Amino acid sequence: MSLKTFLIGRPIDTVKEKHERLGKAMGLAVFSSDALSSVAYATEEMLLPLMVLGAVALNYSLPIAAAIIGLIVLVAFSYMQTIRAYPSGGGAYIVAKENLGTNVALVAAAALLIDYVLTVIVSISAGVAAITSAFPALHSHTVALCLLSLLLIVIVNLRGIRESGAIFSGPTYIFIVSLAIVVVVGIWKYHTGEVTPSHMELPHEALDALPILLVLRAFSSGCTALTGIEAVANGVPAFKQPESRNASITLAWMATLLGGLFLGITYNAYVYGITPKENVTLVSQLVMAVSGGGPLYYLVQFATFMILILAANTSFADFPRLSSILARDYFLPRQLASQGDKLVYSNGIILLGVFGALLMVAFGGDTHAMIPLYTVGVFLAFTLSQSGMVVHWLKSREKGWFFGMMLNGVGGITTAAVLLVIASTKFFHGAWLVVAAIPMLIFLMWRVNRHYKSIAEQLVPADMAVEQPYTHHSVIIPVGGVHSAVVNAIKYGSSISEDVVAIYVCLDTRNASITQERWAKFSMGVPLIVLDSPYRSVIEPVVDYIEEVRKVHKAGVITVILPEFVPSRWWEHLLHNQTAWLLKGILLFKKGVVCTSVPFQLK
Amino acid sequence: MSLKTFLIGRPIDTVKEKHERLGKAMGLAVFSSDALSSVAYATEEMLLPLMVLGAVALNYSLPIAAAIIGLIVLVAFSYMQTIRAYPSGGGAYIVAKENLGTNVALVAAAALLIDYVLTVIVSISAGVAAITSAFPALHSHTVALCLLSLLLIVIVNLRGIRESGAIFSGPTYIFIVSLAIVVVVGIWKYHTGEVTPSHMELPHEALDALPILLVLRAFSSGCTALTGIEAVANGVPAFKQPESRNASITLAWMATLLGGLFLGITYNAYVYGITPKENVTLVSQLVMAVSGGGPLYYLVQFATFMILILAANTSFADFPRLSSILARDYFLPRQLASQGDKLVYSNGIILLGVFGALLMVAFGGDTHAMIPLYTVGVFLAFTLSQSGMVVHWLKSREKGWFFGMMLNGVGGITTAAVLLVIASTKFFHGAWLVVAAIPMLIFLMWRVNRHYKSIAEQLVPADMAVEQPYTHHSVIIPVGGVHSAVVNAIKYGSSISEDVVAIYVCLDTRNASITQERWAKFSMGVPLIVLDSPYRSVIEPVVDYIEEVRKVHKAGVITVILPEFVPSRWWEHLLHNQTAWLLKGILLFKKGVVCTSVPFQLK
Repeated sequence: MSLKTFLIGRPIDTVKEKHERLGKAMGLAVFSSDALSSVAYATEEMLLPLMVLGAVALNYSLPIAAAIIGLIVLVAFSYMQTIRAYPSGGGAYIVAKENLGTNVALVAAAALLIDYVLTVIVSISAGVAAITSAFPALHSHTVALCLLSLLLIVIVNLRGIRESGAIFSGPTYIFIVSLAIVVVVGIWKYHTGEVTPSHMELPHEALDALPILLVLRAFSSGCTALTGIEAVANGVPAFKQPESRNASITLAWMATLLGGLFLGITYNAYVYGITPKENVTLVSQLVMAVSGGGPLYYLVQFATFMILILAANTSFADFPRLSSILARDYFLPRQLASQGDKLVYSNGIILLGVFGALLMVAFGGDTHAMIPLYTVGVFLAFTLSQSGMVVHWLKSREKGWFFGMMLNGVGGITTAAVLLVIASTKFFHGAWLVVAAIPMLIFLMWRVNRHYKSIAEQLVPADMAVEQPYTHHSVIIPVGGVHSAVVNAIKYGSSISEDVVAIYVCLDTRNASITQERWAKFSMGVPLIVLDSPYRSVIEPVVDYIEEVRKVHKAGVITVILPEFVPSRWWEHLLHNQTAWLLKGILLFKKGVVCTSVPFQLK
Repeated sequence: MSLKTFLIGRPIDTVKEKHERLGKAMGLAVFSSDALSSVAYATEEMLLPLMVLGAVALNYSLPIAAAIIGLIVLVAFSYMQTIRAYPSGGGAYIVAKENLGTNVALVAAAALLIDYVLTVIVSISAGVAAITSAFPALHSHTVALCLLSLLLIVIVNLRGIRESGAIFSGPTYIFIVSLAIVVVVGIWKYHTGEVTPSHMELPHEALDALPILLVLRAFSSGCTALTGIEAVANGVPAFKQPESRNASITLAWMATLLGGLFLGITYNAYVYGITPKENVTLVSQLVMAVSGGGPLYYLVQFATFMILILAANTSFADFPRLSSILARDYFLPRQLASQGDKLVYSNGIILLGVFGALLMVAFGGDTHAMIPLYTVGVFLAFTLSQSGMVVHWLKSREKGWFFGMMLNGVGGITTAAVLLVIASTKFFHGAWLVVAAIPMLIFLMWRVNRHYKSIAEQLVPADMAVEQPYTHHSVIIPVGGVHSAVVNAIKYGSSISEDVVAIYVCLDTRNASITQERWAKFSMGVPLIVLDSPYRSVIEPVVDYIEEVRKVHKAGVITVILPEFVPSRWWEHLLHNQTAWLLKGILLFKKGVVCTSVPFQLK
């Protein structure tokens, strides 16, 4: 208990739950870490598939980036419509559930749950990559560093942090400002000729045969820049009044910063001829080229790490929250629905931590390997959310419904198209894992739901009139000898019924006669029945005897009392026969049989 | 249950335990597999440390082998004295316990338990090496083959084989005869000049500087030839009358065969210039050189595998038997003392299998790595056994005591000296593991013993007059709502006491009032007490309430009834709150509190 208190802190009283409303600046800090942090790896991911062409690939980077920025603008405008329609917060699960029904909502839920896990591992591994780029000696410890960061995030969340603007604003704004300086200085240095550009011109022949598949792959990977863009729309109620307006303006700012930084980094990479390299991130190379090392370089690397950790952290609010909603809807185990003593959904946090750690080890902390999985889920959620909005506008017909529907419609069709591109071009790079996992997760959620529904039906109490008291109460005490624990059990048994018998399984006639002799002295009048066991099984004769008694008293109840030693040290449990456990496990399934352990505490 | 029956077979009735008495020829087959099988690797192990000198090392092999054969003769004569003194079977633990006291006996027991595990893994890996020498394609599957062989031995033993002469005599005699043919044909071919010897003469200079440490190491490793030589002495009662005489003659035969085969193999290796090679055993090389491949080669390899499997199998009789003796003396968990439904000590067999498998994987099935560990334990047991015999003769002064004492004394001093040589020259090659494990094992056995003794004292029932019936019986039913399982629990509770209350922990005031409303209808007059929980813990308020009741009725008993769902599928258990388990675990340590689960079986 003291270890728990040390790591997690003291419990928090329910009445202390507070709500803090955010202004636009704070709101930007709180909701943009996930989206903005993706510029730390989006350009690099976009360029990677092109690298089979060599450095000439850089010539494709600006047009592809332009397409992605167009997509950012479109998705941002679409989500502004969601903000307008769902001032209480419109996550993909809620929007899909209200407008498209439970089945589609579960698809969205599955996609989101997977995304949250991937946000954690992609962000942490990209954050650690920023650190190992600056300190190459740490590179061989990538997985260990990732797991350590994950552990810290889990502990901090179990302690119960609030989504406090104060914590978020520092790293987010440092990241935005320092990266903006790098981008601007980089462009300025290039145009003043201070740095010689090293990029190559593409030969004309290559342009004739545009490698369309590679370009689509690059586009798919680059779309990772859009991850997290929906965060503001989910969190509208956290803003100061007027919530919708403030949230919309914040979203516009976020999209602008996202597009600007992504374009800036891609442009700089283009003019400086920087391509992805092993063990050093593209942003690290770029900052090094522009700043020549020194304090600015380390500031950017550290701010990148920090914002990515914050991005991972957002999943630790979102995943447990969605899990608890699903658990309350009986689609996930109900342990996920209850808040722990720190007012957080502790089980959801631990579950996310465990999944994250497993996948982190499976992927060896390699960001590139995880990206295809990530983008599939994100665009599936986008598409379902936008489709839900189209239905919403059609149903509601409120002011501006047509404009909203058109925007969400275009958004939905576009993200659906992008989803298809990603799923097909990245299928064998890992996207298949998500395509396979989503139906499995949905199946699981339905099974869980069916189980709870079936229980609920079975648990409706019958009319009281039907419940008669038991006609008989037999107490059976299996004993292995005559000792204090048995005497204890006899005393308890005699206090709950008149009909008490002890049964002894004879494995060795000598011991049996010793037990019978000693019995008279300590039995308190309880008879001892000796059962034969030709095959030396202790369990079978006992179970058979209980079955016999059940047959005699059909409307009665049987209490089986097991004298149980309670050793004071854990390893001492190994020194005692586990027969009682086995017997309990078997009797659990017999109607009208109740098992009682009468503990005997040892020193 | 059906899988168990398929693998292990039907149970065997206690009365079916039979005893078979062995003649000399059968006795030799039964008890010599462990000892004789060691010639399959002893020469190779002896030569290995010398290999730093190159092939000239072979010149040392015959003198070292002569010393080892001298040791075999001495130890065999010593054990003949043990046979004379202990016609009921004189294992090292029994001899040490009777003559040197419990502490020394536990040293012997620890050494023997470790030896039995090592016999298993050394024999199996050497057996598999014989097979992979013949079929090099299997070499990469060494560990898998070892584990498979181990698994088969475990299953066969759990099924309950008798140490039947019929099973043992085939492989043992085929091994002896085929290997003897190879030895004789090898010598004959060499002396008739049919094969050109390829060994080199040692330059005279090297002889001047005898590498004493290397020679001692070679001697230490070669002493592995002695492992298993004590088997006959342990099994005297299995022989036909006159037991002692038959056993002594069998031991003499076994020692002769052991010495003869060991010498023959070493001599052949010498004249044919065969040295240890990776992936092919020395015996395999030798048989190949003498027979030129063909049926004889495969016969010897297969017979070698078989006798080594039988040698491993002997440990599966010895380890569980010694464990059960130690468990009956309260030095090991008492689960090891009971025979399973196949009349074998199943738990001991499984334990040996698990230890064997772990060490097999840890050592990667590499015989050479295990040998230093093996010989230390074996010679420690020899030394303690011989020392015990010296004390025995001194005490008994029976006919021929002086001759026996002298022989056992010389045997004990010699094996002690060899033990020191082995422990020092092989310390860093793995012997330290055994040197460290023995005291740990002894410490563990004492702790177990102390625990059982302390329990036995605490369990002596007090005088009956002191036991008063309980002054009060309170029944407390923690409930989470109103449903059939709760109604069930109320019905049971009302049948065992008048004072029944239900308690409900309020985490959410809305649910609490719903529960209170529904309570009236189904309560059967049992009051519902609602407890507050500011920190949302379900356990704490319940435990606090129980503590309050305990204070009120100091000489009373409290039954806590937990309504428990019993799902029909295992994974469904995960969907239910584990709160009941936690509560049970806490209440186990409270005196005067009894926990009862009233199961509610779900469909």
